[in-house]
Amino acid sequence: MKIAVAGAGGMGGRFALCLHQSGNDVILIDQWQANIKAIRKDGLTASLNGKVITDQIPIYYPDEIDEKNEKVDLILAMVKSPQLDQMFHAISPIIQDDTYVLCLMNGIGHEDTLSRYVNPGHILSGTTMWTATMKGPGLLELNGEGSIDIQNIRPEGKQAADKVIEVLNQAGLNARYSDNVLASIWRKACITGGLNALTALLECNNMELRSLRVFDAIILEIVKEYIAVAEKEGIHLNQTEMIEAIQDYCRPTVNGFAFTSMYQDLIQNHRITEIEYMNGAISRKGKQYGIPTPYNELLTQLIHAKEQLLTAF
Amino acid sequence: MKIAVAGAGGMGGRFALCLHQSGNDVILIDQWQANIKAIRKDGLTASLNGKVITDQIPIYYPDEIDEKNEKVDLILAMVKSPQLDQMFHAISPIIQDDTYVLCLMNGIGHEDTLSRYVNPGHILSGTTMWTATMKGPGLLELNGEGSIDIQNIRPEGKQAADKVIEVLNQAGLNARYSDNVLASIWRKACITGGLNALTALLECNNMELRSLRVFDAIILEIVKEYIAVAEKEGIHLNQTEMIEAIQDYCRPTVNGFAFTSMYQDLIQNHRITEIEYMNGAISRKGKQYGIPTPYNELLTQLIHAKEQLLTAF
Repeated sequence: MKIAVAGAGGMGGRFALCLHQSGNDVILIDQWQANIKAIRKDGLTASLNGKVITDQIPIYYPDEIDEKNEKVDLILAMVKSPQLDQMFHAISPIIQDDTYVLCLMNGIGHEDTLSRYVNPGHILSGTTMWTATMKGPGLLELNGEGSIDIQNIRPEGKQAADKVIEVLNQAGLNARYSDNVLASIWRKACITGGLNALTALLECNNMELRSLRVFDAIILEIVKEYIAVAEKEGIHLNQTEMIEAIQDYCRPTVNGFAFTSMYQDLIQNHRITEIEYMNGAISRKGKQYGIPTPYNELLTQLIHAKEQLLTAF
Repeated sequence: MKIAVAGAGGMGGRFALCLHQSGNDVILIDQWQANIKAIRKDGLTASLNGKVITDQIPIYYPDEIDEKNEKVDLILAMVKSPQLDQMFHAISPIIQDDTYVLCLMNGIGHEDTLSRYVNPGHILSGTTMWTATMKGPGLLELNGEGSIDIQNIRPEGKQAADKVIEVLNQAGLNARYSDNVLASIWRKACITGGLNALTALLECNNMELRSLRVFDAIILEIVKEYIAVAEKEGIHLNQTEMIEAIQDYCRPTVNGFAFTSMYQDLIQNHRITEIEYMNGAISRKGKQYGIPTPYNELLTQLIHAKEQLLTAF
């Protein structure tokens, strides 16, 4: 199978390596210059459960992709959320009518972005338990075992899902079909949607956030809006279950002492956040479906405000 | 007339002094121990447009007021917003059926608090252009001229307003009746409601706030909620006028470089804010009238969250 892995970070690199080693025709597409230079010069090197292997995999900048490139059968979407639209715009020349896309990225609304470039019946969503660490340009540390759960976002995509699962399993990636992938993506998004923006805005960790007297009241409104929008997308989330999951996530023995990724991005590193793929997606989809989502909308606006104050954005 | 001035700060002190000097029977009620000790020992001293005068005015702690005290004809409410309820609870023994109350405090909802202790037909709202500076316990600096605009909050209060205006004018306080007092209190509240919570939350001055790309969108929602609630209270605010007033307030040549009182309270001094008498009042009144006020509600909750994180509260 001809496969393009869009995003040659840790996870993209892992999947590209396994798929290439199992005999597929794989290319990488990435924007990080040092990474591209290293992989072109020395190949992609990984410590795979302690054993060092190196593999020569072609790698391209997105804007090197043009009509001359061969069409691909499958694209793995593995970029950072804000890069997805630009990436697929650039690589559209290699997308043909029967190209499948498997998106393993966190966040809400990626399928809407992908639908602008790919037949929605060919879009697959997934979650993965594989991990990967990028040790430097072209250099990966890959430990442990993992798995991939896959679900088609449209009924007609089931056949595509089965085919992609087969290819992933030939590469030893433990893929399986699951009816729960979309719901589990939404559940994860609802938890991060409840915590990330608030911790970044109030500059506290999960446990401190949980200790606030207004916590339950704010979380309730956020979750209710997530549930209403999810329902319109055919995903049923349970309110009590979601609220308990958020509270549980903040326990000292779970993630209480941790700072959310949005706190790290905005407060520690003064970087633009992924708010548009969390609460911002709920606000956008709410408008689209005619559902009021004022809590998610104001939180999105306040994070954008803080981005503008703290970064050069 | 027997008059109690509740709150012996700068403004309360000024009015007490003028009313006492013009022959009224005046008492002060205050909670600041050093102030009470100084006034009891040396009287209330003021530099009044450069001329130093001292006046002996009886002063009491709120909990010294009991059934033995004489009833009063007029109470001036001049305390900090969060103290109003407790103050009127404590001084209720001196409130009789025909006691009037004139409230000259900033913020929304004070008449609701006062209505628990005073016949609403006897409650008067006012705005004032007088100024005062507290130089120390029992020590005031009073410069310039001013005026007081008064309006009854219920139609039956007009006669009370006229009577109070007469007494204030005998004391040289330039009081007059105005049909616009309630509207002007709401307009002022809407401007502070648009700016105070946001500047405290995002830790910026008015001009920085105004420069945010999300500013107009957030302000629009806040103002719409203020207008909907005000309408239920018989006050008509114009949306375009309010938004322009807020934008204008943030201009560098107006108050752009200034930090709001809520920023000063919360960020600079780590003190509890007056949010409950700003956006919090809109949220409470919204619930009471069945009007959704999610922007003001979430802003109130976020300020309370920040109060809990930054103060010992």
